Amino acid sequence: MARPAPSPRTSYAWFTTLETRWADNDQYGHLNNTVHYGLFDTAVARLHVGWGVFDDAGATAKDVVVESGCIYHAEARYPDTIHVGLRVGHIGRSSWRYELGLYRNDEDTAFAEGFFAQVQTDPDGRPCALADAFRARLASLQLPG
Amino acid sequence: MARPAPSPRTSYAWFTTLETRWADNDQYGHLNNTVHYGLFDTAVARLHVGWGVFDDAGATAKDVVVESGCIYHAEARYPDTIHVGLRVGHIGRSSWRYELGLYRNDEDTAFAEGFFAQVQTDPDGRPCALADAFRARLASLQLPG
Amino acid sequence: MARPAPSPRTSYAWFTTLETRWADNDQYGHLNNTVHYGLFDTAVARLHVGWGVFDDAGATAKDVVVESGCIYHAEARYPDTIHVGLRVGHIGRSSWRYELGLYRNDEDTAFAEGFFAQVQTDPDGRPCALADAFRARLASLQLPG
Amino acid sequence: MARPAPSPRTSYAWFTTLETRWADNDQYGHLNNTVHYGLFDTAVARLHVGWGVFDDAGATAKDVVVESGCIYHAEARYPDTIHVGLRVGHIGRSSWRYELGLYRNDEDTAFAEGFFAQVQTDPDGRPCALADAFRARLASLQLPG
Repeated sequence: MARPAPSPRTSYAWFTTLETRWADNDQYGHLNNTVHYGLFDTAVARLHVGWGVFDDAGATAKDVVVESGCIYHAEARYPDTIHVGLRVGHIGRSSWRYELGLYRNDEDTAFAEGFFAQVQTDPDGRPCALADAFRARLASLQLPG
Repeated sequence: MARPAPSPRTSYAWFTTLETRWADNDQYGHLNNTVHYGLFDTAVARLHVGWGVFDDAGATAKDVVVESGCIYHAEARYPDTIHVGLRVGHIGRSSWRYELGLYRNDEDTAFAEGFFAQVQTDPDGRPCALADAFRARLASLQLPG
Repeated sequence: MARPAPSPRTSYAWFTTLETRWADNDQYGHLNNTVHYGLFDTAVARLHVGWGVFDDAGATAKDVVVESGCIYHAEARYPDTIHVGLRVGHIGRSSWRYELGLYRNDEDTAFAEGFFAQVQTDPDGRPCALADAFRARLASLQLPG
Repeated sequence: MARPAPSPRTSYAWFTTLETRWADNDQYGHLNNTVHYGLFDTAVARLHVGWGVFDDAGATAKDVVVESGCIYHAEARYPDTIHVGLRVGHIGRSSWRYELGLYRNDEDTAFAEGFFAQVQTDPDGRPCALADAFRARLASLQLPG
């Protein structure tokens, strides 16, 4: 189980800042492992809101998470401020992959890194081809290499 | 069940800003009623962190919530930014009452208002008299009238 | 601030059992104060599901919480099993009040008690008169005295 | 991105049952992707509680999640009852891997499957060798093949 080294902030293309909440700490006094996914989830939603493409009622399309994962390099805890870095990996016909890094306060080494693979579906749950404009936005967050 | 009118921001003495998360919305598309308490909880923790008196491990003292309540005037929803107003009501020997108002974005009318009654206990769970410095800090957030 | 004594299980008319989750414990090693409201919320939803009246999409009506409160008599913690007792207080034209008690494992003394005041609204958010059948179900959970 | 087919219950060695909560549904009307990790987390904690090895205060050892992941095959939603299946994958000197499947109600096809890689650390955060008894318990949940 060789683990990848934590990435610096330059490994990500877009950033947003999220606050922790007191109850994010579990009894071990650190962010519970599920909180990281809530941070990923909220960062992605914020990105989509900013793009004006977040259909939160799912009336015309839903962006559904089909796979997710996280490597926990180090602990974080309330009241840390979390800077979420995001880049786009693979882009498919109806699906794509967000890769995310979580940074505490002013640190440059990620305390956790993970991914969200999403698929866009119509209201009946069928995958639908991504609109060109959305695809272009995704591509703008891909990093070389 | 006559309900009090929502308060303006001038009804509170101290403010802090919290972000909502996507999963704060329940299936009804608004902040689930429990989220409001998480916002109260986090605002109070942040106040205590700022005062340098937040013993998050509970090693010497715990600030325990003994009663809480909330009136929901209107809905809020992700991605609203929430401004939490706080004032101090009654101060007792070992207990006190925080009164809180929640404001969406740039609104001046609270969408929810509530309270947290807390007691300070020693590590064995016995109420302990408040330190003078803490009592003075609480008193500084009481409003006239 | 005279606090009421904790009630025995005979003070409630209907019971359901809920499990705690590890992350329900906050850093203090007890159920975070917001978790109690999640237990109330889930017990009420389960009651409505059992009655066949839970419109979870809110397509025809929503049961919205307009006020809630909780008195914390004692701590509970994961992995406690929670027995939620419920009775109905006031019933109005479009609103009603659930009163709830939380019991740990086989204890007969509530560790927390609270209430949920709900109003039924149409999809546009206007309060609507309760159906007779729903009102009768509510009345069946009122206790004498 | 070839995705593995969902596993039947016979793919797991140990089961426990967890209830969903109303607020587990996000605005899309299904379990938010973070809830699955909370179910994994709680199932693992329950396993350890049953073994009598859950040191929830972390006084002598902590079982820390170092990597997690989930594939979402299908949606689940409140009020589904969730049956969590668990088996043990790799066992190392101080770490091991739980593999988990989530089943709705009486279905035999997992709606989600994932894993928790954990490491046991001393109170200073250093990995410590697993006790023989704990290692034997883990091995008892490995499946052939």
